[in-house]
Amino acid sequence: MIYLVRKEHFNAAHRLFREEWSNEKNEEIFGKCSNPNWHGHNYDLIVTVKGDPSPETGFVINLRTLSEIIKEHVLNKVDHKNMNLDVEFMKGYIPTTENIAIAIWDQLEPLVKELGIRLHCVRLEETEKNVVEYFGK
Amino acid sequence: MIYLVRKEHFNAAHRLFREEWSNEKNEEIFGKCSNPNWHGHNYDLIVTVKGDPSPETGFVINLRTLSEIIKEHVLNKVDHKNMNLDVEFMKGYIPTTENIAIAIWDQLEPLVKELGIRLHCVRLEETEKNVVEYFGK
Amino acid sequence: MIYLVRKEHFNAAHRLFREEWSNEKNEEIFGKCSNPNWHGHNYDLIVTVKGDPSPETGFVINLRTLSEIIKEHVLNKVDHKNMNLDVEFMKGYIPTTENIAIAIWDQLEPLVKELGIRLHCVRLEETEKNVVEYFGK
Amino acid sequence: MIYLVRKEHFNAAHRLFREEWSNEKNEEIFGKCSNPNWHGHNYDLIVTVKGDPSPETGFVINLRTLSEIIKEHVLNKVDHKNMNLDVEFMKGYIPTTENIAIAIWDQLEPLVKELGIRLHCVRLEETEKNVVEYFGK
Amino acid sequence: MIYLVRKEHFNAAHRLFREEWSNEKNEEIFGKCSNPNWHGHNYDLIVTVKGDPSPETGFVINLRTLSEIIKEHVLNKVDHKNMNLDVEFMKGYIPTTENIAIAIWDQLEPLVKELGIRLHCVRLEETEKNVVEYFGK
Amino acid sequence: MIYLVRKEHFNAAHRLFREEWSNEKNEEIFGKCSNPNWHGHNYDLIVTVKGDPSPETGFVINLRTLSEIIKEHVLNKVDHKNMNLDVEFMKGYIPTTENIAIAIWDQLEPLVKELGIRLHCVRLEETEKNVVEYFGK
Repeated sequence: MIYLVRKEHFNAAHRLFREEWSNEKNEEIFGKCSNPNWHGHNYDLIVTVKGDPSPETGFVINLRTLSEIIKEHVLNKVDHKNMNLDVEFMKGYIPTTENIAIAIWDQLEPLVKELGIRLHCVRLEETEKNVVEYFGK
Repeated sequence: MIYLVRKEHFNAAHRLFREEWSNEKNEEIFGKCSNPNWHGHNYDLIVTVKGDPSPETGFVINLRTLSEIIKEHVLNKVDHKNMNLDVEFMKGYIPTTENIAIAIWDQLEPLVKELGIRLHCVRLEETEKNVVEYFGK
Repeated sequence: MIYLVRKEHFNAAHRLFREEWSNEKNEEIFGKCSNPNWHGHNYDLIVTVKGDPSPETGFVINLRTLSEIIKEHVLNKVDHKNMNLDVEFMKGYIPTTENIAIAIWDQLEPLVKELGIRLHCVRLEETEKNVVEYFGK
Repeated sequence: MIYLVRKEHFNAAHRLFREEWSNEKNEEIFGKCSNPNWHGHNYDLIVTVKGDPSPETGFVINLRTLSEIIKEHVLNKVDHKNMNLDVEFMKGYIPTTENIAIAIWDQLEPLVKELGIRLHCVRLEETEKNVVEYFGK
Repeated sequence: MIYLVRKEHFNAAHRLFREEWSNEKNEEIFGKCSNPNWHGHNYDLIVTVKGDPSPETGFVINLRTLSEIIKEHVLNKVDHKNMNLDVEFMKGYIPTTENIAIAIWDQLEPLVKELGIRLHCVRLEETEKNVVEYFGK
Repeated sequence: MIYLVRKEHFNAAHRLFREEWSNEKNEEIFGKCSNPNWHGHNYDLIVTVKGDPSPETGFVINLRTLSEIIKEHVLNKVDHKNMNLDVEFMKGYIPTTENIAIAIWDQLEPLVKELGIRLHCVRLEETEKNVVEYFGK
């Protein structure tokens, strides 16, 4: 079994807050990340899939195929968007790095399975210092 | 003369658009960057000053001093902010990388001069691929 | 379960040697790293914890909390220090990357457990080319 | 048990194609990577071994020893070479990142075992965005 | 005046040699880089242009425009190609980093001038350690 | 004229202090960098030379030659050393990044001139955030 890793990138705005909390409580919990006028990040998205290389092509999967799936089902929906307001698959979730990673996993997992391979990890780097990895349930 | 380079970092939201233009014209000119609900970036800010090292300390200037000036007069005003709405010194300017770099120069230049050295360059990296450098008028 | 990764940084001096060995034997085993007047590194410290995101905040843990624990219990004790002479928790150990990583794990593991989550990995990068990972016993 | 990671580097040319296929079919499957006059990459090779640190030296293994093995048995055979034409251990395999990683594992695994430790992972980065990891069968 | 920097990327094969020299002389001068079966690199291409930001858009130039020019006139001609055999604008030149940078400058300089701004620098990174910068004659 | 950039690396210990000052004054001026038991860094050394490419080889200079000069006259003297105690060419100077860069320039400048080209810049990166550039008097 081989693990194939693809790195992609998107830029987005977000705000961490709970509507039912006061601004003070939001700031106490989420700090600067609850700024009412939003802030944003350059997100690095690293998707790892696993499978056996085809004896015919030497590929686990053609990276173009994987990259196009990520582009259509994730990047086009989040790049240059507001994670709280613009992204259907984040509705109802606070856009922490944790929740975004889980939501991206849920987008990609069935599509990767259809290719005859398996999704192994969604890694999301909000900054160089703050990173999350999700391997599914 | 020695050039001293300090790298700092901030995260911010922004939107490129002119109020007097329609959404269509804004999108034609600014593309995805005109998304009405904002998007954002991890900005790397690289400030270069120049001067002669002190024979007593071997420093052009203590980097702590430079770093504190950048923090107080730039980072505290832009980090986790919206460049269009929250930043006094960007009022009236479209927050392109070019305009942010010039505005940061204007913030820092008189303060660096007071230290007895000179500001040489403000470099602003919006993404790894898109960078601006400003050396003053 | 989500893995949360925090990257920190410190600069330190060290020397690899055993007191009971001659300088020649130390140099034979440890090479340039046994230089009697020390040498040093910029260490990157990458700490991974794991847990379930809180439904209320979307956080496995607030990264500020994790970062403060690492700062108080590790960085303040090793940054700009001599790993052989200045660091209580390294007493009796040769400060190889391996031994430093294990010692940092032992510092952090009980503190992370108190937070209701678990320490997963301590990764220590001595240089870009030389890295160690420890996942506990 | 400690995981020890060593990063090395080589530059090589390659071409992805099957001789029994037409140029058209090769281009359909392998895209630009089937360019008949070759293309090339800066490969980053990251080798992870695992073992217990020696109580005497604090080393899982002396990195010089590991680095020399990688140099003699891998780098000297692939650096500044053509992966299709010049590399004995790639004969008969299409030099996809997957196949190169597996072949490097097969070169290193018995040699690492002789050192009394175990090979854990061969990670090969063809570009920053395209990466493969192999952990053995 | 503002300097605008755009980073692009391509992968190519090349060989350093002079036809009129023997293989021995080529190897003496060019070392491993004269390997007859080619080798290759991931090239980072960093193009800097300079001009005044438009008061209307805040752009020196729309980076999309610059990026498309680089793509059409450079990347499409060199990416996944053999610098000795496949690239019209390198005919007659040994593809050292120096010569490739000069040739890319000659491709881009008149096109950038047509945009009403000026080309400032072509920087070509063959590896992280080997870099060339050209500022024109 | 072409600028040729070579990146090298060394690890060293140092301490910033003036002997004639008290420990308190040293700490006031140099902060953590005056720790009596030293600390250290991974230094990145970036040397830029300039000249015209040879019509025969396409090289400004063979990078092997430049790299060997840097190795013999700088790296062998500072790598895995104590900048205060072990380095002849730093005697009498406080090893700030500024002073180390100037001293390395003075080592390299006459040797580069002998090659028929000119030294343009010595850039020294103490950490990713703290960098110095020196272009000579």
